[in-house]
Amino acid sequence: MRIVVALGGNALLKRGQLLTAKNQRENVKVAARALAPLAREHSLVITHGNGPQVGLLALEAAAYSGVEPFTLDILNAESEGMIGYMIEQELGNILPEDVPFATILTQVEVDPADPAFQNPSKPIGPQYPREEAERLAREHGWTIGPDNDMYRRLVPSPKPKRIFEIRVVDWLVERGVVVICTGGGGIPTILTPDGVLMGVEAVIDKDYAGALLATSLKAGVFLMLTDAVAVWENWGKADARAIRRAAPAALESLHFAAGSMGPKVEAACGYARATGGRAGIGALEDAVAIIEGRAGTLVSTEFEGIEYWPSLFDQID
Amino acid sequence: MRIVVALGGNALLKRGQLLTAKNQRENVKVAARALAPLAREHSLVITHGNGPQVGLLALEAAAYSGVEPFTLDILNAESEGMIGYMIEQELGNILPEDVPFATILTQVEVDPADPAFQNPSKPIGPQYPREEAERLAREHGWTIGPDNDMYRRLVPSPKPKRIFEIRVVDWLVERGVVVICTGGGGIPTILTPDGVLMGVEAVIDKDYAGALLATSLKAGVFLMLTDAVAVWENWGKADARAIRRAAPAALESLHFAAGSMGPKVEAACGYARATGGRAGIGALEDAVAIIEGRAGTLVSTEFEGIEYWPSLFDQID
Repeated sequence: MRIVVALGGNALLKRGQLLTAKNQRENVKVAARALAPLAREHSLVITHGNGPQVGLLALEAAAYSGVEPFTLDILNAESEGMIGYMIEQELGNILPEDVPFATILTQVEVDPADPAFQNPSKPIGPQYPREEAERLAREHGWTIGPDNDMYRRLVPSPKPKRIFEIRVVDWLVERGVVVICTGGGGIPTILTPDGVLMGVEAVIDKDYAGALLATSLKAGVFLMLTDAVAVWENWGKADARAIRRAAPAALESLHFAAGSMGPKVEAACGYARATGGRAGIGALEDAVAIIEGRAGTLVSTEFEGIEYWPSLFDQID
Repeated sequence: MRIVVALGGNALLKRGQLLTAKNQRENVKVAARALAPLAREHSLVITHGNGPQVGLLALEAAAYSGVEPFTLDILNAESEGMIGYMIEQELGNILPEDVPFATILTQVEVDPADPAFQNPSKPIGPQYPREEAERLAREHGWTIGPDNDMYRRLVPSPKPKRIFEIRVVDWLVERGVVVICTGGGGIPTILTPDGVLMGVEAVIDKDYAGALLATSLKAGVFLMLTDAVAVWENWGKADARAIRRAAPAALESLHFAAGSMGPKVEAACGYARATGGRAGIGALEDAVAIIEGRAGTLVSTEFEGIEYWPSLFDQID
């Protein structure tokens, strides 16, 4: 079976952790150990977030005055190299020596008419005091927006339409290669009316890109791994319940936060409907258990309504 | 026929040019136009230098005090993403839409016992005044060495032994994919006695890595493109002569500068002997002409001794 796994940013760097090479490497080792059993049994394709990594690359570029910082498409490409390398190396060190790997740079098409370009909403980079944020906005043409008591740069987050390298990924999976691709949602590109492909200043949501990847590859399972053990109804309230299984329509009738489970739920439902496969959402260390229905949340058109875990503790075994 | 092309750093950024995204992109466009005819007729694999790009990433990282700069293996991975993206996109914009591309991150094994580790000789990063260089050397454990009136960091440049992703590259070439890989000589790695692969602080010469790539792929031609129109005997002297064709043994009997044509000549001879193929050295814009014997220098065991171009001007047509 083909399985596409999306590693969340928090699976690669814990909240509040400093992005040193050492911390990064240690988290990747943990992720590799969680993914190795999947690679042994299935055809595995790995995608991943890159928020902290692109943030660091942008900060480093801004700290150096020699040249203007590179655009977000190029920073994404750099981060696909940086993170893909570590995942490939650490997973390679666990799996048998003869398992082939390929980290593939991925260009993803977005629609220049996507409303996201009129309404930049994805915060990236550091928080600034209001005056500094306004100065930077004037200097660089940024859109900025409030973030708690501070301000951050906001960039468009358009929907992914097409993965240009998908045939190559498909061929490699067919040959038994563990593929790492579409990192950070992939390099955001638009195809002009003249057929010219070019990068744009945007960030594609990695869960939407992962769903497109899993759908395009006709994967049987699409797994989004994060630091939450499951999708919760009424998260943070007294009557919060962890969801075990759900049909897409039932899950979509609930409300989830845009900055948290919202995109994952939408990505899961879209993929489940398009393929008939199972989308899973849960904790990195539960990767195998989620697929087997022993942990996390599964979304599929085979299910009806919503089924809950009996209690919080039952599902963490 | 399979052709491996190594784009020199100067094919990606002209000497003295500032490494802005715009300059980088314009140079890549020129390179793409030079390579497109080869991709139309042959199975093309592209490798490239990354000196200025890794230099910039290192400068940016050093300018930001938030975290310790990443090591050279990670910076190489970032640069493979950055440069590979631009080459893939610009060449893709010239070739027919249905030509598949893959930029593959490449880990290259070096020998931990390689004498290069005892004798770091490859200068990287900026020039520093002596005192600052000595302080940095103490702080970071760098080796430093004089460079004109200034000092630079010196890192080991071990010989490449194996390209771990070579099977994947081979399969993709077989399927008609234009592959970009082994950028900047590839990510330098060592395999420990326990079979653990890990990155090392080193820079692999891109021409040696290109020769290994071309040899491993059994390429019919290995082309090193740079800003020199050919290999010259007695370069810079009154009796300088541009070499048209040479047998490896004859070429090796001449002397070439270690920082310039030396590695290219050695890479060409090694590849030519190992495969029976033709190695070409010359200017980017002469890519097709070099293969056809109308420009540049060809090295092959089919030739005897050394044949020269009648004059400098005859060969630039």
